[in-house]
Amino acid sequence: MTIFVTGHKNPDTDSISSAIVYAYLKQQLGMDAQAIRLGEVQDETAFALSTFGFEAPQFVEKAGEAELILVDHNEFQQSIDGIEDARILEVVDHHRVANFETADPLYMRVEPVGCTATILLKLFKENNVEIPANIAGLMLSAIISDSLLFKSPTCTEQDIAAAKELETIAGVSAQEYGLDMLKAGADLSKKTLEE
Amino acid sequence: MTIFVTGHKNPDTDSISSAIVYAYLKQQLGMDAQAIRLGEVQDETAFALSTFGFEAPQFVEKAGEAELILVDHNEFQQSIDGIEDARILEVVDHHRVANFETADPLYMRVEPVGCTATILLKLFKENNVEIPANIAGLMLSAIISDSLLFKSPTCTEQDIAAAKELETIAGVSAQEYGLDMLKAGADLSKKTLEE
Ligand SMILES: [Mn+2]
Ligand SMILES: [Mn+2]
Ligand SMILES: [Mn+2]
Ligand SMILES: [Mn+2]
Repeated sequence: MTIFVTGHKNPDTDSISSAIVYAYLKQQLGMDAQAIRLGEVQDETAFALSTFGFEAPQFVEKAGEAELILVDHNEFQQSIDGIEDARILEVVDHHRVANFETADPLYMRVEPVGCTATILLKLFKENNVEIPANIAGLMLSAIISDSLLFKSPTCTEQDIAAAKELETIAGVSAQEYGLDMLKAGADLSKKTLEE
Repeated sequence: MTIFVTGHKNPDTDSISSAIVYAYLKQQLGMDAQAIRLGEVQDETAFALSTFGFEAPQFVEKAGEAELILVDHNEFQQSIDGIEDARILEVVDHHRVANFETADPLYMRVEPVGCTATILLKLFKENNVEIPANIAGLMLSAIISDSLLFKSPTCTEQDIAAAKELETIAGVSAQEYGLDMLKAGADLSKKTLEE
């Protein structure tokens, strides 16, 4: 059975990237994993996806009887509709834990860092899986997005160190690429009044 | 401020051992950590403590304003009284997650294995901290206890592999020592009618 890897509703760049990246890692480890998304891809994220050659994950509305891996969130109200009835196999996240429960033991990796991708970098290393350049690019995009190019108060030493490593693998400059990506997200010409 | 490391109420050998062991690891990493316990030490656990030369952790009844690390549990009703008002810095556990929440991001390491000590072994390695023989002995005791000497259906390949490693470091035979420990816990002469 396919196991779906999903970020939160109103997905940001970390939620989309980490779903793709962790599904990739799980595939390398032999799991039939597939990234999904719970909402529209934002302009910033679309820029990251197209720079590194990825399609947006499939949009899914309801959990059904799926087996799930949650990334970048754990609270049920931020997750896929119907999650109460789904089986949650894993969580990889960097937020507080609340409004979350499982019936069975699971793998849960929550760390007080600035971005899910920073934790995913550890998981690649722990599992001895090589990180391709484009996957590194997505992870770097997530860290730049969550840390606002390392300026957010939630950004930790670990996020900065992870970004340095990923920069080298991805073959881009975090500062240059990061500014372009954040600009793509801030492009006011496309925004509606509501935003 | 001292950070208290605690297992669950009605502590078993994993809860007592993992509190002592994780407090030790945290001390090696520079944290002012201290193991505590939330109830009486059982005979089986007393046998493990005395074999490897440890005192029982201090008994504590209420959380107060403490900073806490939870091992071998996460559900609040199994934890220290007043935990709702405490600050939970970390959780290392192998049970389902439920009835648990924090106000802030934390470190949470939950894995679907048979014993907390199996996860702690990974944390020693990830942090490059050497495991002294007596600490290995406590970890081995926890795995033997939770897995009923590798016979419980909750026992995983990882628990068996961890026990093999710890056996060598501790310098005891899991089978021989394990039987003695389980026998110490099953000593009916000391049991009251209630038990
Ligand atoms: Mn997010
Ligand atoms: Mn995030
Ligand atoms: Mn226990
Ligand atoms: Mn246990």
